[in-house]
Amino acid sequence: MADEDRCSGFMPGERAALPHAPAGPLAGLTFAAKDLFDVAGHPTTYGNPDWARTHPPAVATATAVLALAEAGARFLGKTKTVELAFGLTGENVWYGTPLNPAAPDRFPGGSSCGSASVVARGEADIALGSDTGGSVRIPASYCGIYGIRPSWGAVSLVGARELAPSFDTAGWFAARASALRRAGEVLLPEGGEGPLGPPLRVQEAWVNAQPAVATALKPALEAVESILGPCVQVSTVPHALPFLYEQFRCIQAEEAWATLGAWIAHESPRFGPGVGERFALARDLEPGKAAAARAFRQRFRRRLLGLLGGGAVMAYPTSPLVAPRLDSSPAEQLWVREITIGVTAIAGMAGLAEVSIPAGRANGAPVGLSLVAAPGRDRALLALAERVAERMGLPV
Amino acid sequence: MADEDRCSGFMPGERAALPHAPAGPLAGLTFAAKDLFDVAGHPTTYGNPDWARTHPPAVATATAVLALAEAGARFLGKTKTVELAFGLTGENVWYGTPLNPAAPDRFPGGSSCGSASVVARGEADIALGSDTGGSVRIPASYCGIYGIRPSWGAVSLVGARELAPSFDTAGWFAARASALRRAGEVLLPEGGEGPLGPPLRVQEAWVNAQPAVATALKPALEAVESILGPCVQVSTVPHALPFLYEQFRCIQAEEAWATLGAWIAHESPRFGPGVGERFALARDLEPGKAAAARAFRQRFRRRLLGLLGGGAVMAYPTSPLVAPRLDSSPAEQLWVREITIGVTAIAGMAGLAEVSIPAGRANGAPVGLSLVAAPGRDRALLALAERVAERMGLPV
Repeated sequence: MADEDRCSGFMPGERAALPHAPAGPLAGLTFAAKDLFDVAGHPTTYGNPDWARTHPPAVATATAVLALAEAGARFLGKTKTVELAFGLTGENVWYGTPLNPAAPDRFPGGSSCGSASVVARGEADIALGSDTGGSVRIPASYCGIYGIRPSWGAVSLVGARELAPSFDTAGWFAARASALRRAGEVLLPEGGEGPLGPPLRVQEAWVNAQPAVATALKPALEAVESILGPCVQVSTVPHALPFLYEQFRCIQAEEAWATLGAWIAHESPRFGPGVGERFALARDLEPGKAAAARAFRQRFRRRLLGLLGGGAVMAYPTSPLVAPRLDSSPAEQLWVREITIGVTAIAGMAGLAEVSIPAGRANGAPVGLSLVAAPGRDRALLALAERVAERMGLPV
Repeated sequence: MADEDRCSGFMPGERAALPHAPAGPLAGLTFAAKDLFDVAGHPTTYGNPDWARTHPPAVATATAVLALAEAGARFLGKTKTVELAFGLTGENVWYGTPLNPAAPDRFPGGSSCGSASVVARGEADIALGSDTGGSVRIPASYCGIYGIRPSWGAVSLVGARELAPSFDTAGWFAARASALRRAGEVLLPEGGEGPLGPPLRVQEAWVNAQPAVATALKPALEAVESILGPCVQVSTVPHALPFLYEQFRCIQAEEAWATLGAWIAHESPRFGPGVGERFALARDLEPGKAAAARAFRQRFRRRLLGLLGGGAVMAYPTSPLVAPRLDSSPAEQLWVREITIGVTAIAGMAGLAEVSIPAGRANGAPVGLSLVAAPGRDRALLALAERVAERMGLPV
């Protein structure tokens, strides 16, 4: 593989192709899609050569990909993903780890690493990803672009591979807030507009963040307050974020093994660092743990819907840390994973809509501010993100 | 295969086994699960021998199956399904078509035919099925038992096979309204209780029904009115039900091919009557048709959420016809399919919760009355079904 291919966000080799409508609401824009979305006539690698080898090429195109092309956006090709979407750094040893153009010595974030990279490099206006445990939000924050994890179930995953279905969502990236919103107008169900507020400052997510990250996000939070009024301080989990991480991990493990375990047990595929270990932990999960976590999840979800039912918007750092360095140790990467998912699991466990805004830099790398709303309020959230961007003087 | 096996709702051969909790809210009850739910260590046939041959045995148990066993219900085994869940009669030429004990010369209804049959024969208290286009509701109506298609997304499909994901739901059957409700208390998310009403009489669904069916359901509708007050007459589709059928068919075809087309194109599996033809139609669908249907679906969904948002409950015949005879012609079966899905697509297109109550008999076979509510109101609907059953003197 050429060196250029190894650092590109696009999959190496011939680009998947797809016709697009000559006119439509997204005419003039380009887009790419993570290589877990099917494009008819092309293989879907799911980031792993053994997956590609043991699955026939797609015969139909994923609904979300089709929807963007039908709205006039021009498809540029498939982008790299962490193997089976099970990882947050964005590393892929088979096809190469995409460059993080905003911090070239750091990871791009994953699992939708290629989509984030091509948008951050200005190669595509919009790129589809998927987000189970943070796989759109984290690379958006790491690469300094906009990203949305929509309400669970709001955007079609037909023709896309699954990891943990009760968390899986189809999300997308853009370098401009208006492009993020315009893609939403095509992909999201109708409804959910209207005013949001007040903003809720989720205490534990700010405390959990590195001080430099929290400081860098202050101007963005003030821009939110200038639109929605002063923040109200709240707490989402009485048990704090490490507990939330552990509940998420158990449910994700149970679902990932139920979804992909049969293929793994049957094919014994080769995996890059970390991925195989995570599936082995999923296989060996103590059965009672997931059941207890599912029961907790119901209570957590009810609490969050209560907090957000009236239109309130939570605001907190998308990621508590900037992107880890490419040479960080496995132990450091594991620690980053745990502390990060403690935050991303808030929206994940409750099925909420979350938009990450490229809001500043800390320690020489980008950081994002997340705005999080009740399920179904995606359109309102995208409109709010655009207003915040305007207020901050960011490209809209 | 023994004759007994051919008519049984259970899969032939050794029964899949699973431990259950010694105590819990479902202790003392038995259950079965359609053979598209995984049980660890056993093959999932999805109703088709070529599927079974080309897929490894499950390594994990589906979340919904696990939830019932964890609540103390005793698992009895897997039940037959129409191949790839793509059919409404309940026929399976490979494993045998299960008996409809309430009308032995008629089909049991499908695709969850085995689950309906074992419940109607009193062999299991609860049986899991799945419902994409009516696959729980129709066999419930045909076999004279209770059945629920929950709100889309409400019950986990982790570890279950997909057909058309934006319609697929995990539902269940019971011969007693209390057992239907008790399973719901284990499987459904918390919330959604509270009063429902007024009842809405959906005009086109009553006009669409055979006169004998409509007449047979009158006492059940009166029981609903005695609880919720007099019916308000409404209409859901300005274009009438054949139009709704066609929109449903196009979206289902697009999703079914995106989900299963690669496997079919790669393996060229053998299919029983009708199933292969339906997949061929799905493969050959004109692309623009599904896109137009998806746009219509958004408008339809918004209209239905508007109708039902305040707690209203629609009431109409679950199926416009009783079960077709085992010797009915392919042409007659196609006509039954089209006229039936025109009605079942109301809840399917809008993601609504629907419970079918065994409400009477017409032409010597059972007919069900459906109560349909807004997404998330499943628990209220199950409580209402139990009250209606009490009022009618049915077994609760």
